[in-house]
Amino acid sequence: MRYSKLFGKTLRQPPKDATTVNHRLLSQAGYVEQLMAGVYTYLPLGLRVLRNIEQIVREGMNELGASEVLMPILHPSANWKLSKGWENIDVLFKVKSRTDKEYAVGQSEEEVVTPLVKSRIQNYKDLPLAVYQIHWKYRDELRSKSGILRGIEFLMKDLYSFHESQEDFDRYYQKVKEAYLKIFAKLGLTVKVTEASGGSFTEKISYEFMVLTDAGEDDILYCDDCNFCVNVEIAKVKEGESCPTCKKGALKKSRASEAGNVFDLGQKYSKDFDVTFTDKEGKKQYPVMGCYGIGISRVMGIIVEKHNDEKGIIWPESVTPFKVHLIGLDLQDEEIRKKCNDAYRILNTEYCVPVLFDDRPDTRAGEKFADADLIGIPHRVIVSKKTGDKIEYKKRSESGSKLITMGELKELL
Amino acid sequence: MRYSKLFGKTLRQPPKDATTVNHRLLSQAGYVEQLMAGVYTYLPLGLRVLRNIEQIVREGMNELGASEVLMPILHPSANWKLSKGWENIDVLFKVKSRTDKEYAVGQSEEEVVTPLVKSRIQNYKDLPLAVYQIHWKYRDELRSKSGILRGIEFLMKDLYSFHESQEDFDRYYQKVKEAYLKIFAKLGLTVKVTEASGGSFTEKISYEFMVLTDAGEDDILYCDDCNFCVNVEIAKVKEGESCPTCKKGALKKSRASEAGNVFDLGQKYSKDFDVTFTDKEGKKQYPVMGCYGIGISRVMGIIVEKHNDEKGIIWPESVTPFKVHLIGLDLQDEEIRKKCNDAYRILNTEYCVPVLFDDRPDTRAGEKFADADLIGIPHRVIVSKKTGDKIEYKKRSESGSKLITMGELKELL
Repeated sequence: MRYSKLFGKTLRQPPKDATTVNHRLLSQAGYVEQLMAGVYTYLPLGLRVLRNIEQIVREGMNELGASEVLMPILHPSANWKLSKGWENIDVLFKVKSRTDKEYAVGQSEEEVVTPLVKSRIQNYKDLPLAVYQIHWKYRDELRSKSGILRGIEFLMKDLYSFHESQEDFDRYYQKVKEAYLKIFAKLGLTVKVTEASGGSFTEKISYEFMVLTDAGEDDILYCDDCNFCVNVEIAKVKEGESCPTCKKGALKKSRASEAGNVFDLGQKYSKDFDVTFTDKEGKKQYPVMGCYGIGISRVMGIIVEKHNDEKGIIWPESVTPFKVHLIGLDLQDEEIRKKCNDAYRILNTEYCVPVLFDDRPDTRAGEKFADADLIGIPHRVIVSKKTGDKIEYKKRSESGSKLITMGELKELL
Repeated sequence: MRYSKLFGKTLRQPPKDATTVNHRLLSQAGYVEQLMAGVYTYLPLGLRVLRNIEQIVREGMNELGASEVLMPILHPSANWKLSKGWENIDVLFKVKSRTDKEYAVGQSEEEVVTPLVKSRIQNYKDLPLAVYQIHWKYRDELRSKSGILRGIEFLMKDLYSFHESQEDFDRYYQKVKEAYLKIFAKLGLTVKVTEASGGSFTEKISYEFMVLTDAGEDDILYCDDCNFCVNVEIAKVKEGESCPTCKKGALKKSRASEAGNVFDLGQKYSKDFDVTFTDKEGKKQYPVMGCYGIGISRVMGIIVEKHNDEKGIIWPESVTPFKVHLIGLDLQDEEIRKKCNDAYRILNTEYCVPVLFDDRPDTRAGEKFADADLIGIPHRVIVSKKTGDKIEYKKRSESGSKLITMGELKELL
């Protein structure tokens, strides 16, 4: 991609209303543009990151053996009335048609996925069954001020599983937990798994995958010596007290952002939508259901909150929009221009590496470097009069640069 | 993909309310499930087709040099009030928040894309500018009875272009028209380009890309001898009259479905949102804007309407969910089972061909063949006791089959 042709270039100033790091950096670097509080347009750079995160999550779900579907955003009100979500969920957006038909705007999809599996579960051999989707969701939030961390409109992966017994659900939950930890590690995030309250419809405990960050909207207590972690909402311990699990560490308190969650839904929706199966003894049973979310757009925001410095974003390799930021200097010089174009072509077509090529002829070096730091692509390559037959290579996360050959660059990447 | 693990298998009967071919076949074959009129869930097979169509359209747009973005579905009402769409567009869904904020649900995105480009167009050098997205749209349709041809919720590619002059727009329109014809040809569709009325806000003529099909909702008049084609809504000629362009053929009338369209929006939205640029003479001007749609989910329905027989769907190679449908028979026999698994592995990992493998051990041959015909994958391969060291190969679109080796199959694919 040539920077001169990129739609959504860096801005001189961040938007005035950008109070969080992710909103400020993602807007200024040209990844997103806020349309209104909690609702964003993804510009070409941002869309590439979003798709990369999506793909990592998708691969994790496919490894679990879950099937990808795409469910509607617009739902018949009848389904939400059946589950009592219509009256009880205050963040549910409602729409009325010209002919007074009422619809819910999907904020979660239990009300669609449960009737969807109904005809596809007959007996215990059809279980466990797991389907997921990656799709936009809507919540009528009163406050949406954390950039893309807390959207009214947000992209989410939601997985639903159905089981013949609580024991089978518990086994599956462990598998999903491991898959989640692997996914978050790939995304460059360290998560703490907390217990939390189960939400509107269940007294069961849910699990949250929390990333420590000041931009978060939850408070957690955690132990540095073991995995103990709890949301303060339901904690029976306090900051500074010794860890109830390992008895060694003193509990610390931190702000955190929920990157994923897991709910044990029990038989609520199975019963609401009368989904049954015949068990091994020939008896009708309601399957036990689980729901597992990962906030894809939120994760993009969390990654920026965790991976940045005073100059801009520092993308992990796994989600970066481009692998290499190629900067051409002295482009008035025909020979240098040719060298740049050659390097761009070789990286793109021979090394098959996605490259953003800053080909602006009249922009000064300092501005190009500042833009590269802001955009945050992990590998920077400079071609200029000074670099001669070599190129100058620098990692975004390190300060030193070095002169290397294109062959050495290939090895590095 | 093993059929035994596929979520969304074929149904014995099509849904009772399926009155169109696409609704009937896509539902019965396990591609989609209707949630309510005009709103569908895409099952794994359907999602694969949708993504294939998306990708063909995306490549066409990228070849045009357009930039892919992703704009919100939820829009501030203020933007729609500015364009007068809030009062004048009867298919616009409106949502109110808990705090009485009003939102529009995107039925088209001029109201978002125009302010988005505003800060990015300063002078004539920034033009032409073209951005597109592939995203879900919503229209409060009174009748949604044509399967996925006419959705309340539907997936669309919408491209918007901005130009310094009407002449530049006209040139660009020709380029888009050629790109569209290439895209539709790749999708296995023959389109007629008609003139039609320009919709709510313009007296300019729009162009529609129509596919002749009884399931369509428009009537067109066309000439078999040349490209002449017109929507009867604005036609000044009648069926049977001689063609006004080539004077040779007699005009025919047909039902047709609109797979794509092009609108010359003039300066309406540029003026509404006060988007200006400085021209070569240093004067402020409003850019001329164009809007170009392709209905991705509708195209999926149209393809089914055009490519089917009494047994089921016959997918074009370009969009088929899998390239090969491998059917294992006599799977109680361990040796045959091994041969099947080998063929599956070789196709998948050595030939890198996407395969649907009917591995059901207890299903009779006739049912497997009927399911394969219904699902419509272009290449069918059978491994059974009868096929010995070879495999039986049959094209979905042809009646004869033949025994060939795996090596010959590789050549064929």
